[in-house]
Amino acid sequence: MIESTANIRVRFSETDAMGVVYHANYLPWFEVSRTQLMTEIGLPYRELQDAGFMLPVLEAHCNYKNSAKYDDELKIHAMMKTFPRVRIRIDYEVLRGDEILTTGYTVHAFMNRDGIAIRPPNFFLEKLAKAFGE
Amino acid sequence: MIESTANIRVRFSETDAMGVVYHANYLPWFEVSRTQLMTEIGLPYRELQDAGFMLPVLEAHCNYKNSAKYDDELKIHAMMKTFPRVRIRIDYEVLRGDEILTTGYTVHAFMNRDGIAIRPPNFFLEKLAKAFGE
Amino acid sequence: MIESTANIRVRFSETDAMGVVYHANYLPWFEVSRTQLMTEIGLPYRELQDAGFMLPVLEAHCNYKNSAKYDDELKIHAMMKTFPRVRIRIDYEVLRGDEILTTGYTVHAFMNRDGIAIRPPNFFLEKLAKAFGE
Amino acid sequence: MIESTANIRVRFSETDAMGVVYHANYLPWFEVSRTQLMTEIGLPYRELQDAGFMLPVLEAHCNYKNSAKYDDELKIHAMMKTFPRVRIRIDYEVLRGDEILTTGYTVHAFMNRDGIAIRPPNFFLEKLAKAFGE
Repeated sequence: MIESTANIRVRFSETDAMGVVYHANYLPWFEVSRTQLMTEIGLPYRELQDAGFMLPVLEAHCNYKNSAKYDDELKIHAMMKTFPRVRIRIDYEVLRGDEILTTGYTVHAFMNRDGIAIRPPNFFLEKLAKAFGE
Repeated sequence: MIESTANIRVRFSETDAMGVVYHANYLPWFEVSRTQLMTEIGLPYRELQDAGFMLPVLEAHCNYKNSAKYDDELKIHAMMKTFPRVRIRIDYEVLRGDEILTTGYTVHAFMNRDGIAIRPPNFFLEKLAKAFGE
Repeated sequence: MIESTANIRVRFSETDAMGVVYHANYLPWFEVSRTQLMTEIGLPYRELQDAGFMLPVLEAHCNYKNSAKYDDELKIHAMMKTFPRVRIRIDYEVLRGDEILTTGYTVHAFMNRDGIAIRPPNFFLEKLAKAFGE
Repeated sequence: MIESTANIRVRFSETDAMGVVYHANYLPWFEVSRTQLMTEIGLPYRELQDAGFMLPVLEAHCNYKNSAKYDDELKIHAMMKTFPRVRIRIDYEVLRGDEILTTGYTVHAFMNRDGIAIRPPNFFLEKLAKAFGE
Protein backbone atom coordinates (compact mmCIF):
# COMPACT_ATOMS: atom_id res chain seq x y z
CA MET A 1 0.00 0.00 0.00
CA ILE A 2 1.13 3.55 -0.68
CA GLU A 3 -0.53 6.44 1.11
CA SER A 4 -0.47 10.13 1.91
CA THR A 5 -2.34 12.46 4.27
CA ALA A 6 -3.24 16.03 3.35
CA ASN A 7 -4.29 18.72 5.83
CA ILE A 8 -7.38 20.78 5.10
CA ARG A 9 -9.17 23.59 6.91
CA VAL A 10 -12.85 23.81 5.97
CA ARG A 11 -13.69 26.97 4.02
CA PHE A 12 -16.95 28.85 4.51
CA SER A 13 -17.59 28.42 0.77
CA GLU A 14 -17.69 24.64 1.33
CA THR A 15 -20.64 24.77 3.75
CA ASP A 16 -24.34 24.69 2.87
CA ALA A 17 -27.63 25.82 4.43
CA MET A 18 -27.67 22.75 6.74
CA GLY A 19 -24.68 24.42 8.44
CA VAL A 20 -22.23 21.68 7.47
CA VAL A 21 -20.00 20.86 4.51
CA TYR A 22 -21.97 20.22 1.29
CA HIS A 23 -21.62 16.55 0.38
CA ALA A 24 -20.13 17.11 -3.09
CA ASN A 25 -17.22 19.06 -1.61
CA TYR A 26 -15.53 15.94 -0.27
CA LEU A 27 -14.57 14.94 -3.83
CA PRO A 28 -12.25 17.94 -4.37
CA TRP A 29 -10.64 17.07 -1.00
CA PHE A 30 -10.11 13.51 -2.19
CA GLU A 31 -8.37 15.08 -5.17
CA VAL A 32 -6.14 17.20 -2.94
CA SER A 33 -4.85 14.09 -1.16
CA ARG A 34 -4.59 12.17 -4.47
CA THR A 35 -2.54 15.01 -5.96
CA GLN A 36 -0.25 14.93 -2.91
CA LEU A 37 0.12 11.12 -3.06
CA MET A 38 1.12 11.28 -6.73
CA THR A 39 3.61 14.08 -6.10
CA GLU A 40 5.21 12.22 -3.19
CA ILE A 41 5.92 9.13 -5.29
CA GLY A 42 7.51 11.28 -8.00
CA LEU A 43 4.57 11.40 -10.38
CA PRO A 44 3.09 14.92 -10.11
CA TYR A 45 -0.26 14.92 -11.90
CA ARG A 46 0.71 18.27 -13.43
CA GLU A 47 3.67 16.61 -15.21
CA LEU A 48 1.53 13.68 -16.35
CA GLN A 49 -0.80 16.21 -17.97
CA ASP A 50 2.07 18.11 -19.59
CA ALA A 51 3.29 14.75 -20.99
CA GLY A 52 -0.12 14.29 -22.61
CA PHE A 53 -1.72 11.89 -20.14
CA MET A 54 -4.95 12.33 -18.26
CA LEU A 55 -6.36 10.29 -15.40
CA PRO A 56 -10.10 10.96 -15.52
CA VAL A 57 -12.38 9.70 -12.77
CA LEU A 58 -14.44 6.69 -13.91
CA GLU A 59 -16.17 6.08 -10.62
CA ALA A 60 -16.54 7.98 -7.33
CA HIS A 61 -18.11 6.90 -4.06
CA CYS A 62 -18.67 8.55 -0.67
CA ASN A 63 -20.04 7.24 2.65
CA TYR A 64 -20.95 10.08 4.98
CA LYS A 65 -20.86 9.20 8.68
CA ASN A 66 -20.55 12.54 10.41
CA SER A 67 -20.50 16.16 9.22
CA ALA A 68 -17.54 18.46 8.87
CA LYS A 69 -18.10 22.10 9.84
CA TYR A 70 -16.66 25.50 8.95
CA ASP A 71 -13.07 26.01 10.14
CA ASP A 72 -12.61 22.34 11.12
CA GLU A 73 -9.07 21.06 10.69
CA LEU A 74 -9.27 17.77 8.79
CA LYS A 75 -6.92 15.10 7.55
CA ILE A 76 -7.60 13.60 4.14
CA HIS A 77 -5.99 10.19 3.89
CA ALA A 78 -5.44 8.67 0.41
CA MET A 79 -4.46 5.02 0.00
CA MET A 80 -3.58 3.02 -3.10
CA LYS A 81 -4.05 -0.44 -1.60
CA THR A 82 -3.21 -2.64 -4.58
CA PHE A 83 -0.81 -2.27 -7.47
CA PRO A 84 -2.96 -1.21 -10.43
CA ARG A 85 -3.25 -3.04 -13.74
CA VAL A 86 -5.51 -1.08 -16.06
CA ARG A 87 -7.72 0.68 -13.57
CA ILE A 88 -6.36 2.60 -10.59
CA ARG A 89 -8.38 2.62 -7.38
CA ILE A 90 -7.70 5.01 -4.52
CA ASP A 91 -9.45 4.84 -1.14
CA TYR A 92 -9.96 7.83 1.17
CA GLU A 93 -10.72 8.64 4.78
CA VAL A 94 -11.62 12.10 6.05
CA LEU A 95 -10.68 12.49 9.72
CA ARG A 96 -11.29 15.13 12.39
CA GLY A 97 -8.87 14.11 15.12
CA ASP A 98 -9.44 10.37 15.50
CA GLU A 99 -13.00 10.47 14.21
CA ILE A 100 -13.64 9.24 10.67
CA LEU A 101 -16.20 11.58 9.10
CA THR A 102 -16.32 10.20 5.58
CA THR A 103 -14.85 7.33 3.58
CA GLY A 104 -14.84 6.87 -0.16
CA TYR A 105 -12.97 5.80 -3.24
CA THR A 106 -12.30 6.83 -6.82
CA VAL A 107 -11.42 4.69 -9.84
CA HIS A 108 -9.30 6.09 -12.68
CA ALA A 109 -7.88 5.03 -16.03
CA PHE A 110 -5.23 6.55 -18.28
CA MET A 111 -6.38 8.48 -21.32
CA ASN A 112 -4.28 10.07 -24.05
CA ARG A 113 -4.71 13.55 -25.54
CA ASP A 114 -7.33 12.20 -27.98
CA GLY A 115 -9.50 10.93 -25.16
CA ILE A 116 -8.67 7.28 -25.88
CA ALA A 117 -8.31 4.95 -22.88
CA ILE A 118 -4.80 3.48 -22.75
CA ARG A 119 -2.76 1.24 -20.47
CA PRO A 120 -0.71 3.03 -17.79
CA PRO A 121 2.59 4.17 -19.40
CA ASN A 122 5.79 2.33 -18.36
CA PHE A 123 7.40 5.23 -16.48
CA PHE A 124 4.25 5.40 -14.36
CA LEU A 125 4.32 1.67 -13.53
CA GLU A 126 8.03 1.79 -12.76
CA LYS A 127 7.73 4.70 -10.31
CA LEU A 128 4.73 3.01 -8.77
CA ALA A 129 6.57 -0.33 -8.41
CA LYS A 130 9.37 1.51 -6.63
CA ALA A 131 6.88 3.19 -4.29
CA PHE A 132 5.26 -0.18 -3.58
CA GLY A 133 8.72 -1.49 -2.76
CA GLU A 134 8.63 -4.13 -5.47
CA MET B 1 -41.32 3.94 -9.44
CA ILE B 2 -41.64 7.70 -9.29
CA GLU B 3 -39.43 9.87 -11.45
CA SER B 4 -38.68 13.34 -12.76
CA THR B 5 -36.38 14.83 -15.39
CA ALA B 6 -34.70 18.21 -14.98
CA ASN B 7 -33.13 20.22 -17.81
CA ILE B 8 -29.66 21.63 -17.33
CA ARG B 9 -27.31 23.70 -19.48
CA VAL B 10 -23.65 23.23 -18.54
CA ARG B 11 -22.11 26.37 -17.04
CA PHE B 12 -18.53 27.40 -17.74
CA SER B 13 -17.94 27.38 -13.97
CA GLU B 14 -18.68 23.65 -13.98
CA THR B 15 -15.81 22.78 -16.34
CA ASP B 16 -12.21 22.00 -15.40
CA ALA B 17 -8.78 22.15 -17.06
CA MET B 18 -9.46 18.85 -18.90
CA GLY B 19 -12.01 20.88 -20.88
CA VAL B 20 -14.99 18.89 -19.57
CA VAL B 21 -17.30 19.03 -16.55
CA TYR B 22 -15.48 18.44 -13.24
CA HIS B 23 -16.61 15.10 -11.81
CA ALA B 24 -17.88 16.47 -8.48
CA ASN B 25 -20.32 18.78 -10.27
CA TYR B 26 -22.67 15.93 -11.18
CA LEU B 27 -23.76 15.69 -7.53
CA PRO B 28 -25.35 19.18 -7.47
CA TRP B 29 -27.17 18.21 -10.70
CA PHE B 30 -28.47 15.06 -9.01
CA GLU B 31 -29.77 17.38 -6.32
CA VAL B 32 -31.52 19.61 -8.87
CA SER B 33 -33.49 16.64 -10.20
CA ARG B 34 -34.11 15.31 -6.67
CA THR B 35 -35.50 18.72 -5.63
CA GLN B 36 -37.76 18.70 -8.67
CA LEU B 37 -38.97 15.13 -7.99
CA MET B 38 -39.85 16.01 -4.38
CA THR B 39 -41.68 19.19 -5.46
CA GLU B 40 -43.69 17.32 -8.11
CA ILE B 41 -45.03 14.79 -5.60
CA GLY B 42 -46.07 17.60 -3.25
CA LEU B 43 -43.11 17.44 -0.86
CA PRO B 44 -40.92 20.45 -1.61
CA TYR B 45 -37.62 20.00 0.22
CA ARG B 46 -37.82 23.66 1.24
CA GLU B 47 -41.05 22.96 3.18
CA LEU B 48 -39.58 19.81 4.77
CA GLN B 49 -36.74 21.99 6.05
CA ASP B 50 -39.10 24.68 7.33
CA ALA B 51 -41.01 21.90 9.17
CA GLY B 52 -37.76 20.92 10.91
CA PHE B 53 -36.76 17.92 8.82
CA MET B 54 -33.52 17.36 6.95
CA LEU B 55 -32.64 14.68 4.44
CA PRO B 56 -28.83 14.52 4.53
CA VAL B 57 -26.91 12.41 2.03
CA LEU B 58 -25.55 9.21 3.61
CA GLU B 59 -24.04 7.77 0.47
CA ALA B 60 -23.33 9.05 -3.04
CA HIS B 61 -22.08 7.19 -6.10
CA CYS B 62 -21.22 8.19 -9.69
CA ASN B 63 -20.24 6.16 -12.75
CA TYR B 64 -18.75 8.35 -15.45
CA LYS B 65 -19.09 6.99 -18.99
CA ASN B 66 -18.69 10.03 -21.18
CA SER B 67 -17.92 13.70 -20.54
CA ALA B 68 -20.31 16.63 -20.56
CA LYS B 69 -18.99 19.89 -22.04
CA TYR B 70 -19.62 23.60 -21.66
CA ASP B 71 -23.02 24.72 -22.98
CA ASP B 72 -24.30 21.12 -23.42
CA GLU B 73 -28.02 20.73 -22.87
CA LEU B 74 -28.52 17.79 -20.52
CA LYS B 75 -31.38 15.90 -18.95
CA ILE B 76 -31.00 14.81 -15.34
CA HIS B 77 -33.30 11.89 -14.64
CA ALA B 78 -34.13 11.05 -10.99
CA MET B 79 -35.88 7.80 -10.09
CA MET B 80 -37.13 6.51 -6.75
CA LYS B 81 -37.46 2.85 -7.74
CA THR B 82 -38.72 1.34 -4.49
CA PHE B 83 -40.92 2.64 -1.71
CA PRO B 84 -38.55 3.61 1.11
CA ARG B 85 -38.65 2.26 4.63
CA VAL B 86 -35.96 3.98 6.70
CA ARG B 87 -33.44 4.85 4.01
CA ILE B 88 -34.39 6.56 0.77
CA ARG B 89 -32.47 5.68 -2.37
CA ILE B 90 -32.65 7.72 -5.56
CA ASP B 91 -31.04 6.70 -8.84
CA TYR B 92 -29.92 9.13 -11.53
CA GLU B 93 -29.05 9.24 -15.22
CA VAL B 94 -27.43 12.19 -16.95
CA LEU B 95 -28.33 12.24 -20.66
CA ARG B 96 -27.18 14.27 -23.66
CA GLY B 97 -29.84 13.44 -26.24
CA ASP B 98 -30.09 9.64 -26.11
CA GLU B 99 -26.58 9.15 -24.77
CA ILE B 100 -26.16 8.32 -21.09
CA LEU B 101 -23.13 10.25 -19.84
CA THR B 102 -23.26 9.40 -16.14
CA THR B 103 -25.28 7.23 -13.78
CA GLY B 104 -25.36 7.32 -10.01
CA TYR B 105 -27.36 7.15 -6.84
CA THR B 106 -27.72 8.81 -3.46
CA VAL B 107 -29.00 7.36 -0.16
CA HIS B 108 -30.72 9.58 2.41
CA ALA B 109 -32.31 9.35 5.85
CA PHE B 110 -34.52 11.74 7.80
CA MET B 111 -32.95 13.78 10.55
CA ASN B 112 -34.61 16.17 12.99
CA ARG B 113 -33.41 19.64 13.98
CA ASP B 114 -31.12 18.12 16.64
CA GLY B 115 -29.31 16.00 14.07
CA ILE B 116 -30.92 12.78 15.28
CA ALA B 117 -31.82 10.17 12.64
CA ILE B 118 -35.56 9.50 12.67
CA ARG B 119 -38.09 7.47 10.68
CA PRO B 120 -39.72 9.26 7.74
CA PRO B 121 -42.68 11.30 9.11
CA ASN B 122 -46.20 10.09 8.29
CA PHE B 123 -47.16 12.97 5.99
CA PHE B 124 -44.09 12.13 3.94
CA LEU B 125 -44.98 8.44 3.64
CA GLU B 126 -48.60 9.27 2.78
CA LYS B 127 -47.69 11.65 -0.03
CA LEU B 128 -45.16 9.14 -1.27
CA ALA B 129 -47.70 6.27 -1.17
CA LYS B 130 -50.04 8.40 -3.26
CA ALA B 131 -47.27 9.14 -5.77
CA PHE B 132 -46.45 5.43 -5.97
CA GLY B 133 -50.15 4.80 -6.64
CA GLU B 134 -50.56 2.63 -3.60
CA MET C 1 -28.06 48.65 -25.27
CA ILE C 2 -28.39 44.93 -25.84
CA GLU C 3 -29.68 42.69 -23.07
CA SER C 4 -30.90 39.25 -22.08
CA THR C 5 -32.55 37.72 -19.01
CA ALA C 6 -31.81 34.17 -17.83
CA ASN C 7 -33.97 32.21 -15.38
CA ILE C 8 -32.29 30.46 -12.47
CA ARG C 9 -33.54 28.34 -9.58
CA VAL C 10 -31.20 28.42 -6.60
CA ARG C 11 -29.49 25.07 -5.94
CA PHE C 12 -28.83 23.77 -2.45
CA SER C 13 -25.14 23.52 -3.41
CA GLU C 14 -25.11 27.31 -3.87
CA THR C 15 -26.07 28.06 -0.25
CA ASP C 16 -23.74 28.43 2.72
CA ALA C 17 -23.93 28.08 6.51
CA MET C 18 -25.58 31.54 6.81
CA GLY C 19 -28.58 29.87 5.13
CA VAL C 20 -28.37 32.02 2.00
CA VAL C 21 -26.52 31.93 -1.32
CA TYR C 22 -22.72 32.14 -0.93
CA HIS C 23 -21.56 35.48 -2.33
CA ALA C 24 -19.13 34.04 -4.90
CA ASN C 25 -21.93 32.06 -6.56
CA TYR C 26 -23.42 35.15 -8.19
CA LEU C 27 -20.49 35.28 -10.62
CA PRO C 28 -21.37 31.95 -12.30
CA TRP C 29 -24.94 33.26 -12.63
CA PHE C 30 -23.64 36.41 -14.30
CA GLU C 31 -21.88 34.05 -16.70
CA VAL C 32 -25.10 32.15 -17.42
CA SER C 33 -26.82 35.35 -18.52
CA ARG C 34 -23.72 36.53 -20.41
CA THR C 35 -23.59 33.20 -22.28
CA GLN C 36 -27.27 33.60 -23.17
CA LEU C 37 -26.81 37.22 -24.33
CA MET C 38 -23.92 36.20 -26.62
CA THR C 39 -25.89 33.28 -28.05
CA GLU C 40 -28.94 35.45 -28.74
CA ILE C 41 -26.95 37.95 -30.81
CA GLY C 42 -25.45 35.10 -32.85
CA LEU C 43 -22.09 34.88 -31.09
CA PRO C 44 -22.18 31.72 -28.96
CA TYR C 45 -19.16 31.78 -26.64
CA ARG C 46 -18.64 28.11 -27.44
CA GLU C 47 -18.07 28.96 -31.12
CA LEU C 48 -15.77 31.87 -30.23
CA GLN C 49 -13.68 29.39 -28.26
CA ASP C 50 -13.65 26.86 -31.08
CA ALA C 51 -12.47 29.66 -33.39
CA GLY C 52 -9.51 30.26 -31.06
CA PHE C 53 -10.78 33.27 -29.13
CA MET C 54 -11.17 33.63 -25.40
CA LEU C 55 -12.89 36.39 -23.44
CA PRO C 56 -11.32 36.20 -19.98
CA VAL C 57 -12.68 38.27 -17.11
CA LEU C 58 -10.40 41.24 -16.30
CA GLU C 59 -12.57 42.71 -13.59
CA ALA C 60 -15.62 41.58 -11.63
CA HIS C 61 -17.77 43.49 -9.16
CA CYS C 62 -20.81 42.65 -7.01
CA ASN C 63 -23.05 44.77 -4.76
CA TYR C 64 -25.14 42.60 -2.47
CA LYS C 65 -28.40 44.20 -1.29
CA ASN C 66 -30.52 41.26 -0.23
CA SER C 67 -29.95 37.50 0.00
CA ALA C 68 -31.16 34.80 -2.35
CA LYS C 69 -32.28 31.54 -0.74
CA TYR C 70 -32.51 27.88 -1.68
CA ASP C 71 -35.15 27.15 -4.34
CA ASP C 72 -35.74 30.85 -5.12
CA GLU C 73 -36.64 31.55 -8.74
CA LEU C 74 -34.44 34.38 -9.95
CA LYS C 75 -33.94 36.41 -13.08
CA ILE C 76 -30.38 37.27 -14.09
CA HIS C 77 -30.40 40.31 -16.32
CA ALA C 78 -27.29 41.01 -18.47
CA MET C 79 -26.87 44.36 -20.24
CA MET C 80 -24.17 45.56 -22.63
CA LYS C 81 -24.89 49.27 -22.34
CA THR C 82 -22.28 50.70 -24.68
CA PHE C 83 -20.70 49.45 -27.87
CA PRO C 84 -17.28 48.11 -26.88
CA ARG C 85 -13.96 49.26 -28.27
CA VAL C 86 -11.17 47.17 -26.73
CA ARG C 87 -12.73 46.25 -23.42
CA ILE C 88 -16.22 44.83 -23.12
CA ARG C 89 -18.28 45.71 -20.06
CA ILE C 90 -21.46 43.89 -19.09
CA ASP C 91 -23.75 44.96 -16.23
CA TYR C 92 -25.99 42.57 -14.29
CA GLU C 93 -29.03 42.63 -12.04
CA VAL C 94 -30.25 39.63 -10.05
CA LEU C 95 -33.99 39.88 -9.40
CA ARG C 96 -36.48 37.94 -7.28
CA GLY C 97 -39.80 39.15 -8.61
CA ASP C 98 -39.45 42.93 -8.69
CA GLU C 99 -36.81 43.04 -5.98
CA ILE C 100 -33.19 43.62 -7.01
CA LEU C 101 -31.02 41.35 -4.85
CA THR C 102 -27.63 42.00 -6.38
CA THR C 103 -26.07 44.19 -9.05
CA GLY C 104 -22.65 43.87 -10.61
CA TYR C 105 -20.50 44.05 -13.69
CA THR C 106 -17.69 42.25 -15.46
CA VAL C 107 -15.05 43.60 -17.85
CA HIS C 108 -13.56 41.38 -20.57
CA ALA C 109 -11.00 41.56 -23.38
CA PHE C 110 -10.30 39.29 -26.32
CA MET C 111 -7.34 36.95 -26.09
CA ASN C 112 -5.96 34.59 -28.72
CA ARG C 113 -4.86 30.97 -28.20
CA ASP C 114 -1.43 32.13 -27.08
CA GLY C 115 -2.89 34.22 -24.28
CA ILE C 116 -2.11 37.50 -26.05
CA ALA C 117 -4.66 40.32 -25.67
CA ILE C 118 -6.04 41.32 -29.07
CA ARG C 119 -8.65 43.68 -30.49
CA PRO C 120 -12.15 42.21 -30.92
CA PRO C 121 -12.23 40.37 -34.29
CA ASN C 122 -14.27 41.93 -37.12
CA PHE C 123 -16.99 39.28 -37.27
CA PHE C 124 -17.61 39.96 -33.56
CA LEU C 125 -17.89 43.73 -34.05
CA GLU C 126 -20.17 43.27 -37.08
CA LYS C 127 -22.61 41.00 -35.27
CA LEU C 128 -22.53 43.35 -32.32
CA ALA C 129 -23.18 46.41 -34.52
CA LYS C 130 -26.20 44.62 -35.97
CA ALA C 131 -27.48 43.78 -32.48
CA PHE C 132 -27.02 47.40 -31.43
CA GLY C 133 -29.03 48.41 -34.51
CA GLU C 134 -26.21 50.45 -35.97
CA MET D 1 -2.90 48.34 9.05
CA ILE D 2 -3.38 44.77 10.16
CA GLU D 3 -2.65 41.93 7.78
CA SER D 4 -2.24 38.19 7.28
CA THR D 5 -1.02 35.91 4.51
CA ALA D 6 -2.52 32.49 3.83
CA ASN D 7 -0.88 29.76 1.73
CA ILE D 8 -2.94 28.03 -0.93
CA ARG D 9 -2.24 25.29 -3.44
CA VAL D 10 -4.56 25.45 -6.47
CA ARG D 11 -6.96 22.50 -6.65
CA PHE D 12 -7.96 20.90 -9.93
CA SER D 13 -11.59 21.60 -9.00
CA GLU D 14 -10.79 25.32 -9.10
CA THR D 15 -9.73 25.32 -12.76
CA ASP D 16 -11.98 25.77 -15.81
CA ALA D 17 -11.93 24.84 -19.49
CA MET D 18 -9.56 27.76 -20.27
CA GLY D 19 -6.98 25.75 -18.31
CA VAL D 20 -6.68 28.31 -15.52
CA VAL D 21 -8.43 29.11 -12.26
CA TYR D 22 -12.10 30.09 -12.74
CA HIS D 23 -12.47 33.78 -11.86
CA ALA D 24 -15.13 33.28 -9.14
CA ASN D 25 -12.80 31.00 -7.17
CA TYR D 26 -10.63 33.88 -5.97
CA LEU D 27 -13.43 35.00 -3.64
CA PRO D 28 -13.28 31.84 -1.48
CA TRP D 29 -9.50 32.37 -1.28
CA PHE D 30 -10.06 35.93 -0.11
CA GLU D 31 -12.25 34.38 2.58
CA VAL D 32 -9.53 31.94 3.61
CA SER D 33 -7.12 34.82 4.27
CA ARG D 34 -9.88 36.90 5.92
CA THR D 35 -10.69 33.98 8.26
CA GLN D 36 -6.99 33.69 9.13
CA LEU D 37 -6.64 37.45 9.75
CA MET D 38 -9.64 37.43 12.11
CA THR D 39 -8.33 34.38 13.98
CA GLU D 40 -4.87 35.92 14.39
CA ILE D 41 -6.24 39.06 16.05
CA GLY D 42 -8.29 36.93 18.46
CA LEU D 43 -11.64 37.22 16.69
CA PRO D 44 -12.28 33.83 15.03
CA TYR D 45 -15.24 34.20 12.69
CA ARG D 46 -16.55 30.88 13.99
CA GLU D 47 -16.87 32.38 17.50
CA LEU D 48 -18.49 35.54 16.17
CA GLN D 49 -21.11 33.33 14.53
CA ASP D 50 -21.64 31.29 17.69
CA ALA D 51 -22.15 34.59 19.55
CA GLY D 52 -24.92 35.47 17.09
CA PHE D 53 -23.08 37.85 14.80
CA MET D 54 -22.66 37.58 11.06
CA LEU D 55 -20.42 39.57 8.76
CA PRO D 56 -22.05 39.23 5.34
CA VAL D 57 -20.31 40.53 2.22
CA LEU D 58 -21.90 43.76 0.97
CA GLU D 59 -19.49 44.33 -1.89
CA ALA D 60 -16.80 42.28 -3.64
CA HIS D 61 -14.32 43.31 -6.31
CA CYS D 62 -11.57 41.52 -8.27
CA ASN D 63 -8.96 42.75 -10.75
CA TYR D 64 -7.43 39.87 -12.68
CA LYS D 65 -3.92 40.53 -14.01
CA ASN D 66 -2.51 37.07 -14.63
CA SER D 67 -3.90 33.54 -14.31
CA ALA D 68 -3.27 31.02 -11.59
CA LYS D 69 -2.91 27.38 -12.69
CA TYR D 70 -3.48 23.94 -11.22
CA ASP D 71 -1.02 23.04 -8.45
CA ASP D 72 0.38 26.59 -8.20
CA GLU D 73 1.47 27.58 -4.72
CA LEU D 74 -0.04 30.97 -3.96
CA LYS D 75 -0.03 33.50 -1.16
CA ILE D 76 -3.30 35.25 -0.34
CA HIS D 77 -2.58 38.51 1.42
CA ALA D 78 -5.42 40.16 3.42
CA MET D 79 -5.10 43.74 4.68
CA MET D 80 -7.42 45.84 6.82
CA LYS D 81 -5.91 49.22 6.01
CA THR D 82 -8.11 51.50 8.10
CA PHE D 83 -9.87 51.09 11.41
CA PRO D 84 -13.51 50.40 10.57
CA ARG D 85 -16.50 52.44 11.73
CA VAL D 86 -19.68 50.81 10.45
CA ARG D 87 -18.43 49.11 7.33
CA ILE D 88 -15.34 46.93 7.29
CA ARG D 89 -13.18 46.89 4.17
CA ILE D 90 -10.49 44.31 3.52
CA ASP D 91 -8.07 44.43 0.59
CA TYR D 92 -6.42 41.37 -0.97
CA GLU D 93 -3.48 40.42 -3.15
CA VAL D 94 -2.98 36.98 -4.69
CA LEU D 95 0.71 36.31 -5.30
CA ARG D 96 2.69 33.59 -7.09
CA GLY D 97 6.21 34.22 -5.86
CA ASP D 98 6.68 37.97 -6.34
CA GLU D 99 4.10 38.25 -9.08
CA ILE D 100 0.71 39.75 -8.20
CA LEU D 101 -1.93 37.72 -10.06
CA THR D 102 -5.08 39.32 -8.69
CA THR D 103 -6.08 42.16 -6.39
CA GLY D 104 -9.46 42.83 -4.86
CA TYR D 105 -11.47 43.91 -1.85
CA THR D 106 -14.57 43.03 0.10
CA VAL D 107 -16.82 45.27 2.24
CA HIS D 108 -18.71 43.83 5.23
CA ALA D 109 -21.13 44.97 7.94
CA PHE D 110 -22.27 43.34 11.15
CA MET D 111 -25.69 41.71 11.21
CA ASN D 112 -27.50 40.10 14.13
CA ARG D 113 -29.35 36.78 14.13
CA ASP D 114 -32.50 38.47 12.78
CA GLY D 115 -30.67 39.77 9.74
CA ILE D 116 -30.66 43.37 11.01
CA ALA D 117 -27.57 45.48 10.27
CA ILE D 118 -25.94 46.63 13.52
CA ARG D 119 -22.86 48.55 14.61
CA PRO D 120 -19.75 46.43 15.31
CA PRO D 121 -20.02 45.10 18.90
CA ASN D 122 -17.67 46.61 21.52
CA PHE D 123 -15.58 43.46 22.09
CA PHE D 124 -14.87 43.45 18.34
CA LEU D 125 -13.77 47.10 18.29
CA GLU D 126 -11.61 46.60 21.39
CA LYS D 127 -9.74 43.59 19.96
CA LEU D 128 -9.36 45.44 16.71
CA ALA D 129 -8.03 48.57 18.45
CA LYS D 130 -5.44 46.39 20.18
CA ALA D 131 -4.43 44.80 16.88
CA PHE D 132 -4.10 48.25 15.32
CA GLY D 133 -1.86 49.23 18.24
CA GLU D 134 -4.17 52.00 19.37
